[in-house]
Amino acid sequence: MPIAYLTRRERFSSAHRLFKPELTDEENLELYGQCSHPNWHGHNYELFVTIKGEIKETTGYVLNLKHLSKLIKDEIIEKVDHKNLNIDVDFLSGIIPSTENVAVYIWDKLKGPIKNLGAEIYKVKIQETENNFIEYFGE
Amino acid sequence: MPIAYLTRRERFSSAHRLFKPELTDEENLELYGQCSHPNWHGHNYELFVTIKGEIKETTGYVLNLKHLSKLIKDEIIEKVDHKNLNIDVDFLSGIIPSTENVAVYIWDKLKGPIKNLGAEIYKVKIQETENNFIEYFGE
Amino acid sequence: MPIAYLTRRERFSSAHRLFKPELTDEENLELYGQCSHPNWHGHNYELFVTIKGEIKETTGYVLNLKHLSKLIKDEIIEKVDHKNLNIDVDFLSGIIPSTENVAVYIWDKLKGPIKNLGAEIYKVKIQETENNFIEYFGE
Amino acid sequence: MPIAYLTRRERFSSAHRLFKPELTDEENLELYGQCSHPNWHGHNYELFVTIKGEIKETTGYVLNLKHLSKLIKDEIIEKVDHKNLNIDVDFLSGIIPSTENVAVYIWDKLKGPIKNLGAEIYKVKIQETENNFIEYFGE
Amino acid sequence: MPIAYLTRRERFSSAHRLFKPELTDEENLELYGQCSHPNWHGHNYELFVTIKGEIKETTGYVLNLKHLSKLIKDEIIEKVDHKNLNIDVDFLSGIIPSTENVAVYIWDKLKGPIKNLGAEIYKVKIQETENNFIEYFGE
Amino acid sequence: MPIAYLTRRERFSSAHRLFKPELTDEENLELYGQCSHPNWHGHNYELFVTIKGEIKETTGYVLNLKHLSKLIKDEIIEKVDHKNLNIDVDFLSGIIPSTENVAVYIWDKLKGPIKNLGAEIYKVKIQETENNFIEYFGE
Repeated sequence: MPIAYLTRRERFSSAHRLFKPELTDEENLELYGQCSHPNWHGHNYELFVTIKGEIKETTGYVLNLKHLSKLIKDEIIEKVDHKNLNIDVDFLSGIIPSTENVAVYIWDKLKGPIKNLGAEIYKVKIQETENNFIEYFGE
Repeated sequence: MPIAYLTRRERFSSAHRLFKPELTDEENLELYGQCSHPNWHGHNYELFVTIKGEIKETTGYVLNLKHLSKLIKDEIIEKVDHKNLNIDVDFLSGIIPSTENVAVYIWDKLKGPIKNLGAEIYKVKIQETENNFIEYFGE
Repeated sequence: MPIAYLTRRERFSSAHRLFKPELTDEENLELYGQCSHPNWHGHNYELFVTIKGEIKETTGYVLNLKHLSKLIKDEIIEKVDHKNLNIDVDFLSGIIPSTENVAVYIWDKLKGPIKNLGAEIYKVKIQETENNFIEYFGE
Repeated sequence: MPIAYLTRRERFSSAHRLFKPELTDEENLELYGQCSHPNWHGHNYELFVTIKGEIKETTGYVLNLKHLSKLIKDEIIEKVDHKNLNIDVDFLSGIIPSTENVAVYIWDKLKGPIKNLGAEIYKVKIQETENNFIEYFGE
Repeated sequence: MPIAYLTRRERFSSAHRLFKPELTDEENLELYGQCSHPNWHGHNYELFVTIKGEIKETTGYVLNLKHLSKLIKDEIIEKVDHKNLNIDVDFLSGIIPSTENVAVYIWDKLKGPIKNLGAEIYKVKIQETENNFIEYFGE
Repeated sequence: MPIAYLTRRERFSSAHRLFKPELTDEENLELYGQCSHPNWHGHNYELFVTIKGEIKETTGYVLNLKHLSKLIKDEIIEKVDHKNLNIDVDFLSGIIPSTENVAVYIWDKLKGPIKNLGAEIYKVKIQETENNFIEYFGE
C-alpha cells in the first residue's frame, strides 16, 4: 500500500520565560533578550504533528484523525494549554522551554503512543509566532 | 544548473462521504464517525502540487507556472470542483475518497503529464481543513 | 460602562446545492452555475458571530466566551456540521441554502438565546470560500 | 476631500491571568475557567488600530503609516510586548486584563496622540486567538 | 426581504511609486520614505468589494457572485494586474497612487456598474501588506 | 544534542520584470506572459530561511533568532525591499529575477554568514503569491 504523511494541527496558549537560574537577570537579558523577562510573557503556539504510514486498505486512512487528535490533546494540549511552561508541565520540568526544546520533548512524549496506534511519528513542528517555527525529526 | 522545487496551489470545493458499501450505516458511523453521514458533507480543499527540476538557463524557470496551473486545472480541478467525489469523478471511481486516497490518485493522474512538460512531480499535498492535511511523495 | 463588540468564530463543513425544485437541471444550471450540481458539492464554512454589549464591571467581559461558543455549537454547529444543508437542517428546511439565506436563519436562531445571555446579537458573517463572504445585521 | 479609514496592525506577545484578588482560586476558576490559572498563560495578540480622516491632497495619505506605526509602538507595543499584562503595564494597572478592557485602555492611550497627528481614532480591534476578537469604538 | 452585505475578494500585483513630480528625489524621500524609490517597488494587493442589497426571493442571492467577480475583473483587475499604477492605468492617471487614492478611484469606477446590476456598492477595502489596509465608503 | 530546524520569515516588497534583453517585447510576452510587462509590476514576497543545527545545551537554541533575523535583514531585506529586483540589487545583477533565481542567489548570499554563526543553511523558500512558491536546498 502507498505511504502517506498525515499532519494534525492543535493549538495551545501558554506563558513561559527563557532563563538560566544560575545567571542574574542582567546576564539572562544579555543571553535571551526580552524572552527572559522575569514576569513571564506568552504565546499562541501552533503544534503540527506529522505521522507516516501505509494507507490502510480497509479504511483509506493512515490513521483515524480523531484518534490522533485525541492522543495529542490527552498527552500534550491538556498539560500545556493555559499553563506556564516553566512551572506547570511535568515533561518539561528542569529544561529551558525554548521552542526547540519543547519540540523535542513533545516528540518524546508522542513517539511511543503513536507507535501503539500503528503509525510512526515523522515530524513535530511548533510555530511560536507568524515569523518563526521549529521542526524536529528525531535526529 | 541548480535544482529547485516549485509549488502551485489550486482549490476545489466538493461533497464526499467516507463509507464502505458492504457495511451498514451504523457500522460506517462506528468506523468513520460523522464523515460517513449518508447525505454527504463537503470541504474547500486546497491542493498543492510540487514539482522538482533544473532551473532552465533560457527562462529562469523550473517550469512556466501558467503551464503547470493549466495542467492541474485541466486534469484535476475541472473534474472535482463543485462535484461529488464519490459519484462524479472518473479517476476516483470505486475508491474510498479519504484525503489520503485522493492524494494518491491525483499523483497518478499528474505524474505523466508533468514528465511531458519536462519536470518531475515531487509531492501532492491536500489540505482538507485548517487542522489537517495529507502529503504524498509517490512512495 | 463602555460598549464592546465580541466576535466568536466557529467552523462547519457541509454539503449543499443551490436549485429550485420547480426548475429543470438545465434551468438551474443557467441560474446558479456549478453551484446547482445535482450530486451536491460542499464547503468549509467559517461562521463569525458578533455580539454587542456593555463590559461588565464584575468580570471585564461582554460575555463569557465559553458560553457564547457553547451556544453557537449547540444551536448551529451540531446541526450543520458534516451535514447536508438542503436535507438535514430543520431550521433551513424549504429554503435555498445560499450563504445569504443561511446567515439570516442563523441570526434568527441565535438572536433570542443571546438576549437570554444578557447581550445583543450584532452581526452574523459567513465566509464560504477565501474569496467571498456574507454579512447580515438583522436589517 | 474624501474620507478614508486606515488600519495598522501591530503584534505583541504577553502573559496574563484573569482573576479578582478578592476571590479564592476556586472562585476565580469558576468565574474565568482556565483563564484564571494562577501561574499565568499567554497569547500572541494582534492589535488593529483604525483611524478615520480626510485624504490629504498634498500626500494622498490619511496619515503617514510610518508615523502611525511609530506611535502605536511607542505608546503601546513597547509597554506590553514580552510583558505581563497584570503586573508590568502602567496603563493597565488595577484592571482585569480581559481583551475587552485592554482594548478600552489602548483606545484611551491612543486617542489624544492620534488627534495630535491630525486624524481621529475610529476603532481598536484586538485578536486574542484565531477564534475570538474584540472591537471597541469608544462608545 | 432582508438586506445582506456580500464581499468579493480579487487580487492584483502591481508596481508603483509615491512621489510628486514637482519635488526632487530628496524631497520625495523625506515625504514618502522608501515608497518613493525612483525605480519603483510593488505589492500583491487584495481588493475586497462589498455590496449591499436585498436578498432576492427568486435566487437567495444579493447578487450572483460570478457577475460581481466578472465586473471587478473587467473594470479593475485587467487594468491594474501586472501593471504599473503610475503609468499604465487610465483611471489613475495623474494621481498619487497611495492605497487611499486607489480605493477612491476603484469605488468611482465600480459604483455605476454595480447599480446597473441591481445592487449598491457599500465598501472598497484594499489590503496593501499584511500590516495595513484602507477602507472607503464613499464619504 | 538533538538536531532541529529553525525557520525565520522576513518580507519584502519589490518591483520586477521577467524578460530577456535580446528578445523583443512581443517575444518576451510570448515567453513570460504578463510577467514581462515593460513598465514593471511587483509583489509582496515572503522569504523563509531554514537553518539546521544542534540545539545548544547552554541556550536551548539552534541559533538566537534575533541574530538570524538581523543577518537576513542586513544581507537581503535592506537590499531588495522597496527596490527593483532588475535594477537595484547588486547580487541579482544580470540575472532574470524569477523566484527560482532569486532563491538561489539569496542562498548563496546567506550560506557563508550562517556558517559563521555556527549553523548550516538548509532551505530558502520564497512565496511570491498565495498560489506559488519556490524552495531551494542548494542542490
